[in-house]
Amino acid sequence: MRIAVAQLNYHIGNFEGNLKKMLEAVETARTQKADIVCFAELATVGYPPRDFLEFEDFIELAEHTIEELCKVAKDIAIVIGSPSKNPKPEGKSLYNSAYFIADGKVQQVQHKALLPTYDIFDEYRYFEPASAFNLVHYKGKKIALTVCEDIWDVPYHPDGIIHFDPLYTKIPLDEVKNQGPDFVINVSASPFSFTHAERRLQVLKANCERYHVPFFYINHTGAQTEIIFDGGSVAMRADGTVLEEMPYFQEAIRTFELDDLLTAGPSIVQPKNKIQLIHDALVEGLKNYFQKLGFKIAILGLSGGIDSAVVAVLAARALGEDNVRVLLMPSKFSSDHSVNDARQLATNLGCQYDILSIESIYDTYIQTLETDFRGLPFGLAEENLQARIRGALLMAYSNKFGNILLNTTNKSEMAVGYGTLYGDLCGGLSVIGDVYKMEVYELARYMNKDGEIIPENIITKPPSAELRPDQKDTDSLPEYDELDPILFDYIERRMSPQEIIERGHDEATVRRVLRLVNINEFKRHQSAPVLRVSDKAFGMGRRMPIVGKYLS
Amino acid sequence: MRIAVAQLNYHIGNFEGNLKKMLEAVETARTQKADIVCFAELATVGYPPRDFLEFEDFIELAEHTIEELCKVAKDIAIVIGSPSKNPKPEGKSLYNSAYFIADGKVQQVQHKALLPTYDIFDEYRYFEPASAFNLVHYKGKKIALTVCEDIWDVPYHPDGIIHFDPLYTKIPLDEVKNQGPDFVINVSASPFSFTHAERRLQVLKANCERYHVPFFYINHTGAQTEIIFDGGSVAMRADGTVLEEMPYFQEAIRTFELDDLLTAGPSIVQPKNKIQLIHDALVEGLKNYFQKLGFKIAILGLSGGIDSAVVAVLAARALGEDNVRVLLMPSKFSSDHSVNDARQLATNLGCQYDILSIESIYDTYIQTLETDFRGLPFGLAEENLQARIRGALLMAYSNKFGNILLNTTNKSEMAVGYGTLYGDLCGGLSVIGDVYKMEVYELARYMNKDGEIIPENIITKPPSAELRPDQKDTDSLPEYDELDPILFDYIERRMSPQEIIERGHDEATVRRVLRLVNINEFKRHQSAPVLRVSDKAFGMGRRMPIVGKYLS
Repeated sequence: MRIAVAQLNYHIGNFEGNLKKMLEAVETARTQKADIVCFAELATVGYPPRDFLEFEDFIELAEHTIEELCKVAKDIAIVIGSPSKNPKPEGKSLYNSAYFIADGKVQQVQHKALLPTYDIFDEYRYFEPASAFNLVHYKGKKIALTVCEDIWDVPYHPDGIIHFDPLYTKIPLDEVKNQGPDFVINVSASPFSFTHAERRLQVLKANCERYHVPFFYINHTGAQTEIIFDGGSVAMRADGTVLEEMPYFQEAIRTFELDDLLTAGPSIVQPKNKIQLIHDALVEGLKNYFQKLGFKIAILGLSGGIDSAVVAVLAARALGEDNVRVLLMPSKFSSDHSVNDARQLATNLGCQYDILSIESIYDTYIQTLETDFRGLPFGLAEENLQARIRGALLMAYSNKFGNILLNTTNKSEMAVGYGTLYGDLCGGLSVIGDVYKMEVYELARYMNKDGEIIPENIITKPPSAELRPDQKDTDSLPEYDELDPILFDYIERRMSPQEIIERGHDEATVRRVLRLVNINEFKRHQSAPVLRVSDKAFGMGRRMPIVGKYLS
Repeated sequence: MRIAVAQLNYHIGNFEGNLKKMLEAVETARTQKADIVCFAELATVGYPPRDFLEFEDFIELAEHTIEELCKVAKDIAIVIGSPSKNPKPEGKSLYNSAYFIADGKVQQVQHKALLPTYDIFDEYRYFEPASAFNLVHYKGKKIALTVCEDIWDVPYHPDGIIHFDPLYTKIPLDEVKNQGPDFVINVSASPFSFTHAERRLQVLKANCERYHVPFFYINHTGAQTEIIFDGGSVAMRADGTVLEEMPYFQEAIRTFELDDLLTAGPSIVQPKNKIQLIHDALVEGLKNYFQKLGFKIAILGLSGGIDSAVVAVLAARALGEDNVRVLLMPSKFSSDHSVNDARQLATNLGCQYDILSIESIYDTYIQTLETDFRGLPFGLAEENLQARIRGALLMAYSNKFGNILLNTTNKSEMAVGYGTLYGDLCGGLSVIGDVYKMEVYELARYMNKDGEIIPENIITKPPSAELRPDQKDTDSLPEYDELDPILFDYIERRMSPQEIIERGHDEATVRRVLRLVNINEFKRHQSAPVLRVSDKAFGMGRRMPIVGKYLS
């Protein structure tokens, strides 16, 4: 038996586009002599469809896609994820299902049992969990159909140590193992994080070792706003070794002979370098945001600092240098080297750049505000005003030429609120809002590995917002190599202040940093969606009260 | 037996403040000779605590509150909602529980079984559902403890017609009814919407009629960012009639004699006028936002239009007229009557106002942009620039004087994206973002019922953004009395385009409006939190993809 894994880039709600891709993939699988072609979880609708699932009309469009796929499933079977209606009055009205289509009709529908409802996932919001499990019988084989999370709640042991903090009270495959499945198909929508690909292989291995059958794991590739899928679909042998881990961040269709998964052999796996993965994920995220919204040209402000430099390079790589436009907007507080460094970067990249001084606009604001501000010292209002003038200029270009403004704030700044709302926090997409400052440096070095693109001075000079004379980030924040570990322990590991202090940090610093994180929730609430590359990004995966008083 | 219902205004994560309130309430209940005093759902931590629940430190602080309450529960019992740890390794690590405290210690803990995971609710994200149900035996009575949603999934029949689309597969009280409970205590955190109080009484009545015992329903009052609680706690007789519905939007403690709930008698209920409820809820929301964040003075721009006028009145009523500052920021496109009307409103309210022309700032922007914009016609860029200058001026005051900017966008505008990101969409809190334009008119009339506060001309003139000569909202949108019903059918009722058209709307208009709703998700993503007064507000209760292609 030959099984084709179709790793595709879907688009939420684009029923026509998704169907067209799948029909082409069915043809390809047919030429590869596949008996079954497998698509990913909720492939008809794209992932995550979110509250579109509450529209009956939307569900009916998904059902129409299934009907269209039935028409081509004559000499080939199709496995595909799609929502299905719960016929019972009790419980949620939908299931998250894997359809098995053969001989022109839906033969069987297996619902998902384990519904991730944590971090970015909201599946229990929409779906009823499966209560019944049945194998699919096809061409003499018994197939266990599972949906993503269904295989994730098993003990795994990457270092000989068993990791197991089960989120659910049952393991779906345990319910069918006595029926003797020949292999497992897992239709997934498993978003990227820089730790995910490694963990995915460990979890699959744990499953193969538990059930002693081959696994086919089919993932999405591409991005939907902030959620990036890396692909990396897997055919794993019954012995828990990889036959093939498919490429990251690209569409691919591979057909595997089932017998090849029952004997030992070499493994094709993808490289897993953290910074390279983050780099490639961000390029993919940017590219998909523009493609799927029908945009072409990005605009951003280049300050001469490292954050905007890294975003400019990512944008040029995602969209092409001709589709990136940059503005240099110096004020009287801007140093000469900032303008020069920014200009050098634009030249290195080959992007269109313009230099607009914000001084006359700033002065006119100050005149307009004179009556009420007279006699009051220069302060936060005047600093933020500069950032807001830059935001307004960039948005004027955006409105005039249809360019999409990219936000260049990093995760460390977003965490502590070091940024001006409606100023440098403007933008349609936050490109590096899930990348800590120290990782931004690593990205810059990685980008320069084959020759200097980002001028060395941008990487080595002390970070500064340049909103008042001789300002440095460290005037109001700890050094980033001290700040980032505190933020990581609090945001990613949810440690208490006491635990973080016990790891060797100064108590006053820890308390100040955690307070900054919590009192700046209001800024993050109004920020652009953040391309997610870590296990805990700001945005839909981290939901915090604004009026909360904890540690604030 | 005497049962005290303590309807309090908690503050998320403010353990010290919440405990202090509860200790005072215990004393009050004691003076009222109560045997049991009941607090609301998750009263220790405030609702919704959201991802703070993932911090073990946060849970331990809640446990500490329970310990402190044990110390005072000597001659009085306490019922209180608080998270509790799941001792089993399987499943989520917490329960959402009702504690029964007596004789100085926790006697029993009943977990919540039905975990709302829809709209603004995310409870399955944090909690494992209860699997066991046990009555509390106290002073010869058998008490059924339930938590909020546990009593909501029963058939109810407001008009003789049974309404029942069960979200869950079991009904917790059915599990204990054979044990013969004497009465039910329901600790709740049931957010306000203008339909909620009516439905709440219907649901309680359905329960009383199903189980033939009295019910005590204890709600929160006050607001946490966008979520407003109206209180309205209820003591309901076994026969399904109200003994007392407690006041809306205020703290209150009432002690009821159980025997009084077993015989017929008169009912104390609160008035339920839609516009009055919305008005009072918005005032409460505003007041709590400022109090709980420690802010004092609000600022907003008064355009001379009805939206900013209504927000100014709400702010004056919530914070006092001395704590509201308004800016009038005319451009060359502003009509004389706009400035005059706005000035008249500020005078009527007794608020501080300043007039700042934006013309010179606008002209300086245009000069700065001249090189690239030369020869291009006046358009969206120039319109939005005016709104962004106003946003920047308001934020300058905010930064300089610590005033909090209120957003004045209504729900109709938010729906179709009729507003400028980083311009009139600025603000820390969206006050009327869940109020459709036609309802804003009703609010204005309601405010003027005892004398003109909002100048009549503001209510009667055609709505205009005044960003270009002779602009009217209807240049780009249908009339609001046509637009609002289309929006309501799509947003609140989740109808398909076809269904909406069949209700008598023009097809092209419907398709254009729904497209506007969907393509403007990016603006709503970056908007301020919206005070929620309807069953479907923008924000955490409505989660839509940005790159989605459905109806766009």
